[in-house]
Amino acid sequence: MKLYERCANDIAELIRSGVLRPGDKLPSVRDASLARSMSRSTIFEAYYLLETDGLIEARPRSGYYVRSGRMATALPEPCDSTPDGLEREVAVGQLVLDLLGCAGRREFVPLGSAFLSPTLCPLKRLARHLWTEMRDFDSWHLIEDLAAGNESLRRQLVLRYAIDGMAVDPAELVLTSGAMEGLNLCLHAVTQPGDVVVVESPTFYAALQALERLHLRAVEVATAPGRGIDIDALATTLRQHRVAACWLMPNFQNPLGSLMPQENKEALVAMLAEREIALIEDDAYAELYFGARKPLPAKAFDTNGLVMHCGSFSKCLAPGYRVGWVAGGRFAKRIEELRLMHTLSPAIPSEAAIAAYLNHGGFDRHLRRMRSALIGYQATAVQAVQDHFPASTRMAVPQGGYFLWLELPDTVDALALHFEARKRHISLAPGPLFSADRRFTHCLRLNYGHGCDPRFLPALQTVGELATQQCATATH
Amino acid sequence: MKLYERCANDIAELIRSGVLRPGDKLPSVRDASLARSMSRSTIFEAYYLLETDGLIEARPRSGYYVRSGRMATALPEPCDSTPDGLEREVAVGQLVLDLLGCAGRREFVPLGSAFLSPTLCPLKRLARHLWTEMRDFDSWHLIEDLAAGNESLRRQLVLRYAIDGMAVDPAELVLTSGAMEGLNLCLHAVTQPGDVVVVESPTFYAALQALERLHLRAVEVATAPGRGIDIDALATTLRQHRVAACWLMPNFQNPLGSLMPQENKEALVAMLAEREIALIEDDAYAELYFGARKPLPAKAFDTNGLVMHCGSFSKCLAPGYRVGWVAGGRFAKRIEELRLMHTLSPAIPSEAAIAAYLNHGGFDRHLRRMRSALIGYQATAVQAVQDHFPASTRMAVPQGGYFLWLELPDTVDALALHFEARKRHISLAPGPLFSADRRFTHCLRLNYGHGCDPRFLPALQTVGELATQQCATATH
Repeated sequence: MKLYERCANDIAELIRSGVLRPGDKLPSVRDASLARSMSRSTIFEAYYLLETDGLIEARPRSGYYVRSGRMATALPEPCDSTPDGLEREVAVGQLVLDLLGCAGRREFVPLGSAFLSPTLCPLKRLARHLWTEMRDFDSWHLIEDLAAGNESLRRQLVLRYAIDGMAVDPAELVLTSGAMEGLNLCLHAVTQPGDVVVVESPTFYAALQALERLHLRAVEVATAPGRGIDIDALATTLRQHRVAACWLMPNFQNPLGSLMPQENKEALVAMLAEREIALIEDDAYAELYFGARKPLPAKAFDTNGLVMHCGSFSKCLAPGYRVGWVAGGRFAKRIEELRLMHTLSPAIPSEAAIAAYLNHGGFDRHLRRMRSALIGYQATAVQAVQDHFPASTRMAVPQGGYFLWLELPDTVDALALHFEARKRHISLAPGPLFSADRRFTHCLRLNYGHGCDPRFLPALQTVGELATQQCATATH
Repeated sequence: MKLYERCANDIAELIRSGVLRPGDKLPSVRDASLARSMSRSTIFEAYYLLETDGLIEARPRSGYYVRSGRMATALPEPCDSTPDGLEREVAVGQLVLDLLGCAGRREFVPLGSAFLSPTLCPLKRLARHLWTEMRDFDSWHLIEDLAAGNESLRRQLVLRYAIDGMAVDPAELVLTSGAMEGLNLCLHAVTQPGDVVVVESPTFYAALQALERLHLRAVEVATAPGRGIDIDALATTLRQHRVAACWLMPNFQNPLGSLMPQENKEALVAMLAEREIALIEDDAYAELYFGARKPLPAKAFDTNGLVMHCGSFSKCLAPGYRVGWVAGGRFAKRIEELRLMHTLSPAIPSEAAIAAYLNHGGFDRHLRRMRSALIGYQATAVQAVQDHFPASTRMAVPQGGYFLWLELPDTVDALALHFEARKRHISLAPGPLFSADRRFTHCLRLNYGHGCDPRFLPALQTVGELATQQCATATH
């Protein structure tokens, strides 16, 4: 780690631990340079890094301040979930498809969408790489890459793991058509019809859909908006059920946005290793962290090859290109085989363009810009919820990703709210999408990844008003 | 149909029915013009069409002749298959992966490959379309197209169906990551674990792999190298088993190359409609016909929406781009939903580039060139088999696609031959890959789609000599 990075980390730690608070002024570059015996340019670089990471902001002719907004919410967090711990068959797929059919259409403000705004991504540079890579593409690669995947992309991925301090064997890397295919293949690789799979509560509906498709049974485990899955509750579940696999999102969980503390990730991996249970780790939002450092995935603590780490470029670089990957541990070969049988391969031009983008540098700079934008969007959305939603709304403000999870007063029916909003051309993702027994009836997942859309704020305000009206009607 | 097309069709029919035979000279343009009261340019255009379709050839300063080569084999056809008619679980996937792992690597002569040479495809033009389409791509389309698929591409597909005389509803078109994903989704859409599915005998190993993955049971039905699946045998099977679906390739079946007569396709569709059984129709080689006209798929005779017609651009235009489609009939919505849950969408840049290629014209010209090349490769391969393989070899010479199916003397062990060839850096697809009970032990599928590779002919010769040696060893 370079000197300025160490300096930035120190300050970030002070912010995280609450020693420095939103609005606090940082020492000037000159003062800090004297105090820490570092060159001014080192301090400046450290501040710049903190700024692009969204932790501090420069105010013209005044200096650097700890950013407010991100954590500045007056609303309490939603309650930890309390699922009933039963195994159940899943039948949520149709509901998801019915409700979210409109979420991707431009005439709808996409508060219910699962995607962030593609305008945050370097689409033109990627397009140029498509051309430069494919115009003289060695035609043998069009066949060879089908099985093995783009070799340069695989090396870049291994390198990025290495930078995060993780030794991932190139042989365990499987390229996939987005994280979605990767997750599905992992689940298929370690289960048989009828098996039981642990998911979070609430959980990403795609996990429920995957279980449904493969005729698996779900057990939901209590999950906190702040710290993610409850390790003790998981331990109990593992004692009570014969579990084939866990499908979890330790980082910036969808829909909660929760982030598991590192020690919990370690405990999770150890607990599963003891029982030889496979972990499918969805880390699609890994690069969209707002803190000073990328949180490690559970995979980082895996010594038994039981963790399948699923990543994607769809959320952070190349939406629609459909390239993701799995670091599949001991299941890698099986995952690759299943992919060969099912889709054969991700698109070769997509792989080649992303590989070229990574090779030419600038990915991390792009990511810093993207994170910075998302931090701003989040602040806007948090403020709007405080201003316009019913007073007793609870809200989790995550440290990454682009979802807010709202727990509205329990007189609110999120499904009804969804249909009301849809009439006004606003899409919403209501709570019942996120559990096998359709709980969370008064909860909402709000997407702030389109914060640049001029319709974003007015739409939030509209939804808040609709929710407030529902509360008023209920009390009368 | 234009006049010159009608004229070409008449001549093609004479060739097909055997009235005109390979080597026969056609009347001169002048004579034909007088005889048929058509302008010389009409006759010339008709001859040109027949030539590009590979049915006749111009010999300098001599005139037009019915092409030899394609059908000019002295070898008898392989026997019709005689499967035992039992339902069985499938476990062929691992064998396929083990045996064909080398088929895609450039150091191997790809006689066992499933792909044709990408050099036959307009790769540079596609690359340019990637750039021109994606550089200013409406970023909303990166989200909207995920669910619906590229709208222009969908229109082009409907149009191509219409040109073939088929009314396909745009609403039943689902874009997929190659035909492979399409076929798999269709199978998933109409079956539950434990169901029985009819396949041909021999059948494409991907069908067997798909059955295996979805915990389905296969019943193989007798299939002839010339006329495809035996309709009477199928009728018997349908009476004896509770069949959930059929997975068939009426056109240029892989591996046989067989082509079902149109009346059999009609009978097939009627028979399945009577019992409300779904047909998954793999038509991946549709464009690679050597006759004057594209043979209709079974889908053309479907009035009940029971036929799911799966096509692809991978074999005829854009290898590695991973774009295919399903005209899914009554199952279209379910197929699309399954795709949304599994891979979400094919790659948007791939879809956009192919749509642009189709819009800019030249696809049919490209296809004519491609077919013409394949006809030439086939003639070369057929000759080489006659010259170098054991005398009692039987061979099916198909009217399209790029596979030859060889039935070697039954003293030959195709698996052993495969391993011998592999030592010499030649890949082969041995017969046991193509049935659930690993029959066809003395059969081979030979790929002639790399006929432009200078190693192609020497490799064929080598394999023929290895087979001859095996025969000699067996008789001593």
